[in-house]
Amino acid sequence: MPEKRYLFTPGPTPVPPEVLAALAQPVVHHRGPDFRKIYGRCLERLAEVYRTDSDVLLFTSSGTGGLESVVANLCAPGDKVLAVTAGNFGERWAGLAELYGCDVQRLTYEWGETPSPDELDARLDEIGGAKVVLLTHSETSTGVVADVQALAAVARGARAMVAVDAVSSLGAVPLDTDSWDLDAVVSGSQKALMTPPGLAFVAVSERAMDAASELPVRGLYFDWRRTKAGQAKLDAPVTPAVSLITALDVALGILLEEGIDSAVERHIRLGRACRAGVKAMGLELFSPDEDRSAVVTAVRVPEGVDAAALLLDLRDRMGVQLIGGQGELKGKVVRIGHIGYYDVFDITTALGALELGLSEAGAEIERGIAVTAALEAFEHTKV
Amino acid sequence: MPEKRYLFTPGPTPVPPEVLAALAQPVVHHRGPDFRKIYGRCLERLAEVYRTDSDVLLFTSSGTGGLESVVANLCAPGDKVLAVTAGNFGERWAGLAELYGCDVQRLTYEWGETPSPDELDARLDEIGGAKVVLLTHSETSTGVVADVQALAAVARGARAMVAVDAVSSLGAVPLDTDSWDLDAVVSGSQKALMTPPGLAFVAVSERAMDAASELPVRGLYFDWRRTKAGQAKLDAPVTPAVSLITALDVALGILLEEGIDSAVERHIRLGRACRAGVKAMGLELFSPDEDRSAVVTAVRVPEGVDAAALLLDLRDRMGVQLIGGQGELKGKVVRIGHIGYYDVFDITTALGALELGLSEAGAEIERGIAVTAALEAFEHTKV
Repeated sequence: MPEKRYLFTPGPTPVPPEVLAALAQPVVHHRGPDFRKIYGRCLERLAEVYRTDSDVLLFTSSGTGGLESVVANLCAPGDKVLAVTAGNFGERWAGLAELYGCDVQRLTYEWGETPSPDELDARLDEIGGAKVVLLTHSETSTGVVADVQALAAVARGARAMVAVDAVSSLGAVPLDTDSWDLDAVVSGSQKALMTPPGLAFVAVSERAMDAASELPVRGLYFDWRRTKAGQAKLDAPVTPAVSLITALDVALGILLEEGIDSAVERHIRLGRACRAGVKAMGLELFSPDEDRSAVVTAVRVPEGVDAAALLLDLRDRMGVQLIGGQGELKGKVVRIGHIGYYDVFDITTALGALELGLSEAGAEIERGIAVTAALEAFEHTKV
Repeated sequence: MPEKRYLFTPGPTPVPPEVLAALAQPVVHHRGPDFRKIYGRCLERLAEVYRTDSDVLLFTSSGTGGLESVVANLCAPGDKVLAVTAGNFGERWAGLAELYGCDVQRLTYEWGETPSPDELDARLDEIGGAKVVLLTHSETSTGVVADVQALAAVARGARAMVAVDAVSSLGAVPLDTDSWDLDAVVSGSQKALMTPPGLAFVAVSERAMDAASELPVRGLYFDWRRTKAGQAKLDAPVTPAVSLITALDVALGILLEEGIDSAVERHIRLGRACRAGVKAMGLELFSPDEDRSAVVTAVRVPEGVDAAALLLDLRDRMGVQLIGGQGELKGKVVRIGHIGYYDVFDITTALGALELGLSEAGAEIERGIAVTAALEAFEHTKV
């Protein structure tokens, strides 16, 4: 294996050295003043990134834990839930609601399609409304970033609460929890927030917290009320992952110093650069060729190339970790993540490795122009 | 605040520098070979520490998450569960079972009492047996370590399954999952396993896994079957906390190099040293003065001393973090944790700080002999 590694997956993502250094600090007690200060600042910074005045609940878990908390706290068995699905993560959302006994209705798209607000409107009308609409902001399996603002407006117009899986989108693409009137927005530490995996966040609107309070408590670990009460006193209801929170605090500081708007602009330009390079090589994009596709670029693997072998070659020979397709896209696409601690030279490294690997695998591609195309797209386009 | 800090709480506990350094390694992808190797080795090492041939399921959560998984996977609503409670953590166990709708019977002790196998036998007889008996190995709120081997033998004799909260005991006091015939044993990373908080483990017997398989799935994140299936392929069902697992692997390596028997012996001697010093000062022990009390020593605060002010003085002036009592022991005891990355000079530091703080708070204590008594008890007694 090569000594130097490049992590270009849409989660986990590369972690800045300052954040890694924070992880290595001696552990402090979670009820002492050192940690309370970090915990409080971290919760405030999260709210700033989410653009919300409501609570952002923090759990020690993967993003899936955050998603499960939404279903467990907001949906009683038999409640009608409309899940908008267009890939692997939309399906996971819907499956969670089914597991909790909800009456799950679906608005299902082919993998790679972009959900339409008009179709959501029609579907809500057809099923007579829903208590909650489950949306996926960035469908990481396909690279599609949905227009959550427009979808949420439709759902709110039909008086449904809106829950959003923003695990891979928060901090990379525009997301405005309060002004979009979102009820529950789930994210995680290991994507655009530049921290190792292990923390999940859920921004919960006052309306959603009230709705949760009307249901019987189901479970303790992911209980919203208990978590909110603990956070209000900076006294976590269970022992939190103090090292990860200390690291997240540093990462959020870096992100907020850059500024959310600047970070969003950078991600738009990274997406453009990646797509420009892919197209310059003569490859076909699977994810949409539009500015919203700023999280991950899915590229069709040329006929005759073994995607799994290609990915292993990149990883084991070049140290470059891309990732293949999930579910029905397995073997058909490779995906390049470009969120978080990421700049244009990460794009050119990813493209260079892909170019070399594909060429040696016998694919007919244009050599020698992808890197320049990416650099030009990054440097010389306006957002 | 002093520059140098001493973390003497029974969780989180001090983390060795090698383990902190592992935390700061660049993040790797959780489905790549680098991480799979670490993940597999970590699971094997956990099984070695647990002394089990069955699965040890690993969750990204606090210990409470592991406890909740036991109730969610093993107990259906209405199932009869006998909870043996003698403190804060026993109550938490019982409360979880109530939250999940179990028919919870109790064998309740005063805080500080040690559960009796004969009384468990009688109580099981009285209630006509139970599906599951919930035990707390180390009741961290009181310092009492229960005789889980004897209690489990009684419960197994009555054909109950045995679930053990071993969060603060695993790695510090004897625990032999398979030969004691235990069904579910929960622990966490941040106690004797010398790793920051954020990981929970549950050793699950084949019998318990079979019993879980007969119940409907409740929840996804803590589902045993899904976790077991993922671990069998070294493919975690949700994104695991790769940094914490990498650190845990290093910590378990340190523990297994010392050897479990040696670690247990060291903890017995640390407990003796702490009690010898406390008694030499003329203070009264709250936790039992016996070798099993090897996790945390609870000391009665002398009349007239404000326990909260004492703890703040130790922490803010001396950098020494002890911890007070929980629940009904609040203000009445201070607790000195001595598990994990801990040696006799940590004991003497804790005792020295306590001696100074108490003396300045006006308590009448013997000065100048606690440290020597502790060193003698550590060095010159046989286990």
